[in-house]
Amino acid sequence: MRIALAQLNYHVGNFEYNTAASIGAIREAKQQGADIVVFPEMSVCGYPARDLLFSEAFIRECLRCVDEIAEACQGIAAIVGSPAFNEESHGKRLRNSAFLLMDGKIQATYHKGLMPTYDVFNEYRYFEPASAFHTIPFKGQRIGLTICEDIWNLHNQGLYAVNPPADLIRENPDLLINISASPFAWNHGANRLRVLSENARTYQLPLFNANLLGGQTDLIFEGGSAVCNPAGELTDLMPSFGEALRVYDLDEVLKGSGKEIPEVPVNEEKYRLMTDALVFGLKDYFRKTGLKKAVLGLSGGIDSAVSLVLAEQALGKENVWAVLLPGPHSSDHSVKDAVSLADNLGVRYDVISINESVSALEKTLEPLFDQTNTGIAEENIQARARAIVLMGLSNKFGHLLLNTSNKSEAAVGYGTLYGDMCGGLSVLGDVYKTEVYGMAEVINSRREIIPRNTITKPPSAELRPDQKDSDSLPEYAVLDEILYKFIEEGMDADSIVKSGHDAATVREVMRLVTGSEHKRRQSPPVLRVSAKCLGAGREMPLEASYGAIFNC
Amino acid sequence: MRIALAQLNYHVGNFEYNTAASIGAIREAKQQGADIVVFPEMSVCGYPARDLLFSEAFIRECLRCVDEIAEACQGIAAIVGSPAFNEESHGKRLRNSAFLLMDGKIQATYHKGLMPTYDVFNEYRYFEPASAFHTIPFKGQRIGLTICEDIWNLHNQGLYAVNPPADLIRENPDLLINISASPFAWNHGANRLRVLSENARTYQLPLFNANLLGGQTDLIFEGGSAVCNPAGELTDLMPSFGEALRVYDLDEVLKGSGKEIPEVPVNEEKYRLMTDALVFGLKDYFRKTGLKKAVLGLSGGIDSAVSLVLAEQALGKENVWAVLLPGPHSSDHSVKDAVSLADNLGVRYDVISINESVSALEKTLEPLFDQTNTGIAEENIQARARAIVLMGLSNKFGHLLLNTSNKSEAAVGYGTLYGDMCGGLSVLGDVYKTEVYGMAEVINSRREIIPRNTITKPPSAELRPDQKDSDSLPEYAVLDEILYKFIEEGMDADSIVKSGHDAATVREVMRLVTGSEHKRRQSPPVLRVSAKCLGAGREMPLEASYGAIFNC
Repeated sequence: MRIALAQLNYHVGNFEYNTAASIGAIREAKQQGADIVVFPEMSVCGYPARDLLFSEAFIRECLRCVDEIAEACQGIAAIVGSPAFNEESHGKRLRNSAFLLMDGKIQATYHKGLMPTYDVFNEYRYFEPASAFHTIPFKGQRIGLTICEDIWNLHNQGLYAVNPPADLIRENPDLLINISASPFAWNHGANRLRVLSENARTYQLPLFNANLLGGQTDLIFEGGSAVCNPAGELTDLMPSFGEALRVYDLDEVLKGSGKEIPEVPVNEEKYRLMTDALVFGLKDYFRKTGLKKAVLGLSGGIDSAVSLVLAEQALGKENVWAVLLPGPHSSDHSVKDAVSLADNLGVRYDVISINESVSALEKTLEPLFDQTNTGIAEENIQARARAIVLMGLSNKFGHLLLNTSNKSEAAVGYGTLYGDMCGGLSVLGDVYKTEVYGMAEVINSRREIIPRNTITKPPSAELRPDQKDSDSLPEYAVLDEILYKFIEEGMDADSIVKSGHDAATVREVMRLVTGSEHKRRQSPPVLRVSAKCLGAGREMPLEASYGAIFNC
Repeated sequence: MRIALAQLNYHVGNFEYNTAASIGAIREAKQQGADIVVFPEMSVCGYPARDLLFSEAFIRECLRCVDEIAEACQGIAAIVGSPAFNEESHGKRLRNSAFLLMDGKIQATYHKGLMPTYDVFNEYRYFEPASAFHTIPFKGQRIGLTICEDIWNLHNQGLYAVNPPADLIRENPDLLINISASPFAWNHGANRLRVLSENARTYQLPLFNANLLGGQTDLIFEGGSAVCNPAGELTDLMPSFGEALRVYDLDEVLKGSGKEIPEVPVNEEKYRLMTDALVFGLKDYFRKTGLKKAVLGLSGGIDSAVSLVLAEQALGKENVWAVLLPGPHSSDHSVKDAVSLADNLGVRYDVISINESVSALEKTLEPLFDQTNTGIAEENIQARARAIVLMGLSNKFGHLLLNTSNKSEAAVGYGTLYGDMCGGLSVLGDVYKTEVYGMAEVINSRREIIPRNTITKPPSAELRPDQKDSDSLPEYAVLDEILYKFIEEGMDADSIVKSGHDAATVREVMRLVTGSEHKRRQSPPVLRVSAKCLGAGREMPLEASYGAIFNC
């Protein structure tokens, strides 16, 4: 038996495109001699469709497309993912399902059993979990088919009381197929492959996984579909961030050897992976929203520099517009460094001073600001004047404004709401400052694209004379470590202090994070590349009293 | 037996306050001769605590407070709500639990069985549902205790396969107690009371319900705790939007008659209810975040007028600051109407022209806007200049900026991101334009507070000469009906057309709604007063293709 994995880039709700792409892959797989072609979870409608799933018309369209794809299955079978109506008398109205299509018809149906409802997942909002699981006969073999999370309860001691593969295995399947939509995080891919490998090894069966590809607003699906042999070795790993169709011979997978599961990437490999993911996520957001061009404010600092490079890689230099917005406290090197970068990339740039606008706004506020000390309010006026100029260009010319804030400053609220926090999409909102530097080094590894001075100078918002980030915040190396322990690892203040940090610093960071939830609530969507993003997957109350819990 | 219901206003994470308030109510109930005092769902920590529930320290503090409250239970019992650790080997780490406290100790524990995971609810993100339910013996009686959603599967044909009261009833309880955190919507209260009544009548038992009180960011819990007799009549309905402690004699409830369940309010009663809810929600958000003062832009139009009145009622006239921001296209009556209103309320107002700031910003953009047609970009500059002034005052003086956009314009994206869409909290974001007028009439019912001209003049954003909302949008009476059918009732385009609307208008409205998801994603939190808010409880993808589904 020859099995094809079709790792396609689907678009939520774009049924015409998704169906045509699926049918195209079925034809190609047939030409390549495949007996069956396997598509990712929710291939018919895209994932996650969120509350579109509550639309009756949406579900009917999904099922119509399943039928249309089935008609194309002549002389070849396909497994597609789609929502379906729950036919039981109880429970959520929908199932998260997979259909085996052949000879123009649905031949078998499998319903997902484990509904991830944590972090970015919200599947129990929509889907009733199945409780009975059966293999599917196909060409004299038995397929043990599962959907994503279904194989993540391998040791049967976790979140769920059921373990679908254990049920399937009682019916002696010949191979395992898992269709998935597992979102990218820089340290998640290795974990995902490990779970695939462990399942194959545990059940001593070959495992074929088709994982979703595509950016869906803030979530990035990398593809990276995989085949494991019964020893749990990696027979093949399909590309990340690109479509692919590959055909595997079951016998060869059964008999062949494979590679070890890769480790979690570190250093340069990690930053290269984050770079690739963000470029892909940017590209897909523009493509799927029908936008072509981006504009961003280029300050001469590291964040906007890296954001510009990523945007140029994603959209092409002709589609990216850098705007330098020197203000009353901008240093000379800011404009110089920004111009060098724009020239290095060959992107259009304009220099627009905000000084007159800031003066006019300050004059307007003068009667009310009279007798007050100059401070954050005045700093914010500069950041917001820049935002008006950038949004003006966005509105006038249809460019999407990219937000260039990093995760460290977003976490501690070191940014101006409706100022530098604005934009249609946040490029680096899930990248800590120290990681932004790591990405800059990767970007510069072949030739110096980002000016050295942008990398070496001390970070500054340049909103008052001689301002440095370190006036208000701990050094980023320290800050990022504390933030990682708090946000990614969920440690409380005491544990972080015990792990080797100054107690006052930890408390201050906690206070800044919990005190800026209201700012992040109004942030643009953040392209997610870590296991715990400050956007999707993190839901904090705004009016809570945090002090007692976090010792801040 | 004498049963007290304690409808208190809890604050998420404020354990000191919540515990002291609970112990105070226990003492008072004891003085009033109660045998047991019943608190709402999650009374120990407040609801919803959201991802704070993932903090180990948070849960440990909850359990410590349960013990502390138990110690205060001497000669009286209490039922409190709290998260607890799940002691089973499988499933989510937590339970949503109720504890019966007496003689200084936890005497019995009940775990919630039905986990609402829809609309604003996300309980399966945190809690493992229980599957076995038992009555609790207390002073020779058997209590059938449940938590909120547990009694909403009465006809056993809905979302869940289990029905906790049916299990409890096999153990012949003498009374039913339900502790809840059921969020307010103007048409939800009647529904909530109907469910209480139906349970009492079905099982022929008295039912005591303690419902949560308090604003929690965007969610409002109204209280309105209730007692039903075994005939399902309403023995007592506790106040909405205020704390209360009432003691009931079980025998009197068993033998006494009661009232019919109230109908869903209409017209003036509806608008009065929405007004009360919003005033309460505003007041609580300020109190719980430790803020005292609000600032808002007063345009002379109906939305900011109603918002100002609500803010004045919530915070007091000395804590509200109205800022009039006439611009190049503001009409004379705008300032005049706004001044009249501020005078009527006795709130501080200032008039700050944005003309110079707008000129400076336009001049800054002139080199790039040269040769383009004046349009939305220029209009947005005015809205954003106002936002800078308002946020400047907010940042300088610590006033929270209130957003005054209504639900109709939020739905169709008729607003400027980072302009009139900004603010820390949206007052009217869940109130359709036609409902805003209804609330204005209620506000003016005793004396004319809002100038008649503000109510009668055609709505206008005044961002270009002689602009009217009806230039860009259908009349609000039509628009709001279409929006209600689409958003609240989930109807698709075809059904809305069939219900009596012009097809082109319906498609245009759909196109506007689906095309402005990206704007709403960055909106302030919206005080929720309807059954389907555009903020909490509605999750739409930004990059989806909507056309095929909604015919737009």
